[in-house]
Amino acid sequence: MPLVVQKFGGSSVADATSIKRVAKRIVETKEAGNDVVVVVSAMGDTTDELLDLAASVTAKPAERELDILLTAGERISMAILAMAISELGVPARSYTGQQAGVLTDAAHGKASIVGVVPERIARTIQDGGVAIVAGFQGVSETQDVTTLGRGGSDTTAVALAAALNADVCEIYTDVDGLFTADPRIVPSARQITSITSEETLEMAAHGAKILHLRAVEYARRYGVPIHVRSSFSSKRGTWIGHDDSQSEESSMEDPIIAGVAHDRSQGKITVIGVPDVPGAAARLFAVVAGAGANVDMIVQNVSSAATGLTDISFTLPEADGEATIAALRAAAGDLGYADLRYDDQIGKVSLVGAGMRSHPGVSAKLFNALFDAGINIEMISTSEIRISVVTRADVLDDAVRAVHTAFDLDSSESEAVVYGGTGR
Amino acid sequence: MPLVVQKFGGSSVADATSIKRVAKRIVETKEAGNDVVVVVSAMGDTTDELLDLAASVTAKPAERELDILLTAGERISMAILAMAISELGVPARSYTGQQAGVLTDAAHGKASIVGVVPERIARTIQDGGVAIVAGFQGVSETQDVTTLGRGGSDTTAVALAAALNADVCEIYTDVDGLFTADPRIVPSARQITSITSEETLEMAAHGAKILHLRAVEYARRYGVPIHVRSSFSSKRGTWIGHDDSQSEESSMEDPIIAGVAHDRSQGKITVIGVPDVPGAAARLFAVVAGAGANVDMIVQNVSSAATGLTDISFTLPEADGEATIAALRAAAGDLGYADLRYDDQIGKVSLVGAGMRSHPGVSAKLFNALFDAGINIEMISTSEIRISVVTRADVLDDAVRAVHTAFDLDSSESEAVVYGGTGR
Repeated sequence: MPLVVQKFGGSSVADATSIKRVAKRIVETKEAGNDVVVVVSAMGDTTDELLDLAASVTAKPAERELDILLTAGERISMAILAMAISELGVPARSYTGQQAGVLTDAAHGKASIVGVVPERIARTIQDGGVAIVAGFQGVSETQDVTTLGRGGSDTTAVALAAALNADVCEIYTDVDGLFTADPRIVPSARQITSITSEETLEMAAHGAKILHLRAVEYARRYGVPIHVRSSFSSKRGTWIGHDDSQSEESSMEDPIIAGVAHDRSQGKITVIGVPDVPGAAARLFAVVAGAGANVDMIVQNVSSAATGLTDISFTLPEADGEATIAALRAAAGDLGYADLRYDDQIGKVSLVGAGMRSHPGVSAKLFNALFDAGINIEMISTSEIRISVVTRADVLDDAVRAVHTAFDLDSSESEAVVYGGTGR
Repeated sequence: MPLVVQKFGGSSVADATSIKRVAKRIVETKEAGNDVVVVVSAMGDTTDELLDLAASVTAKPAERELDILLTAGERISMAILAMAISELGVPARSYTGQQAGVLTDAAHGKASIVGVVPERIARTIQDGGVAIVAGFQGVSETQDVTTLGRGGSDTTAVALAAALNADVCEIYTDVDGLFTADPRIVPSARQITSITSEETLEMAAHGAKILHLRAVEYARRYGVPIHVRSSFSSKRGTWIGHDDSQSEESSMEDPIIAGVAHDRSQGKITVIGVPDVPGAAARLFAVVAGAGANVDMIVQNVSSAATGLTDISFTLPEADGEATIAALRAAAGDLGYADLRYDDQIGKVSLVGAGMRSHPGVSAKLFNALFDAGINIEMISTSEIRISVVTRADVLDDAVRAVHTAFDLDSSESEAVVYGGTGR
């Protein structure tokens, strides 16, 4: 019997009505002839409410205690969901991360899964029941409760799917799947039917609000096919990392481009008048790393022969901007630069596609499209399957649309209406 | 260093402000030179809210799932309390029943503790920290989460105190301790300084809303002294089962009477015209037991020589009345009685005192006091250290006051004002 792992997020189980709807869907999957394991997040705003409660007694809660506190959220949703499924006549049992055998390291608040021993889950399935597992949580070697941090529930679902050798890990969401661009910016964006894990990782890493990187990486490592789909419909969503070659729905040739991602959460720091001597950049980025900043793109200008000085620009999450500027100022004596500039009015557009590898000329086409749209390129970075460019923030939407059109990603008008109308 | 186990109920930790107050008290106990282990209930109405949530998806939740659900309540309160204590500069760690080593049988919703292995608690104390333990919960042999049912948190506290060989188990409440009678009925009731476990059990079993029977029984079995006291003051409350002979506060001679309990939650069933043949009563009470009723007092009239028939009356919790009447009706053919009557307008007053054993005449004094007050006695039952009588419900308060006065339990007028003024 095929085994399906289904993951439902907090908005899918926000109240009793939603939970009953999800229960119905799970029972339908089971009655269609599948074994079903469900991973569930905390209901709606539960996690925020618990964080508020903690904030009302202390500004700096101990991480171990915060983890114990937050895991109460999934404990509630999983039990209620199990009850709702049983009410529909299908036996269901809920399991905490610990009971499900989700073993982690001891990094409270951002624990990594070190192993999954889902004996009780396997037994529940064998007995014909549905197993409900609390997402986002595990247990450390010392039997302390841990949480997995952002993207934790998706990661729990993928990890369980891998350990149980599931046929698919279904991630339920409030949209129909992944799109070639954000439909709020590009109303003609198309739903992606199938995409590789690598492309998904590049899209996610460069601003597409889809699955968390961590879950996709885990799925790629263990070969777990992911199906991202809507909890409001039963139509096909987006398959990630699934070998479609034997599927009826596979196309003769994979498209060159998977989609266009954009990111407006980055800032740019320019360090002016850095001495162009060996080791200068290394010292500079050691300071940046020390400030905890996650640097994305780096550009170093050709240095002036007259002065022996150069400028170095790099992008980083806006959230890291202040601390990084402070660290660079503190190290001004050591680094010997002339001036610092911070610019938070930038945007980044990224074109992602595994087909780029074998198709030269993609960059040229991208640059031309932006030139035709009158958009200036400030920085460029590339990977094997991605090209990213930095623009002014106020022309980012235009840039995304121009690139989307240039690479023939726009859907026909009728589809555009459908996607534009969902208001996502 | 003395070890104190402190238990705080849901009303003591109803919100962040209460939790901070409790945290301060715990820190004071610690700083006074004690090791401290704390048992905590769920915050305020949390348990009821969780039950409502379950009721919104199913009328009959599986007991295992209900237990998982309800234990989320203590998980929240214990983590928040640990945070609040740490905020005051004392290291604190919270532990679930499972982590604290509270092992139970698998009777979900009403599990019994089968063992306590508080290794982590002992280690936390050794390390100079305060251990916070979730009350009301444990773990079964199959690693499933269980709840202990009513009185569960008190029982957790006593069981941990026994396993850790604590010097005292302090039960915090919103009153100053146990009283010689309910101060709402007897404004001149006195606070009891010291009472035996046996007397406490009789008082609790016969209507006094004090500690749960189960916790007192556990404490008696393992010789754990209990101190019931107010979470709003630091004055001495009531010590239960504590050997006061070496204490300055011990009196030269223990009082004969500990207190007067009352109960208006009982009903009375009278079975009229039962054949007075061997085995008739046995058959009758087999039916009653089959209905799940917890019978308290039984009176059988002298049978009529003319008819060979007798009447049998017994008391039972009102909640069991309906089911018991139905069971008796269904068995009418077998039992061969003439009629059934149900009376829920009864009250019971009980006089409790270990000193009764060696003081004859207590019964006579009790009956006289009721006679003087014009109160009719309908049923009587006694134990070695208790006399209970059933009266009409509408004279129960008068009965309690008459008995309280007759046995010199009234405090001086000035004390009466104090106790009467607390509005308990």
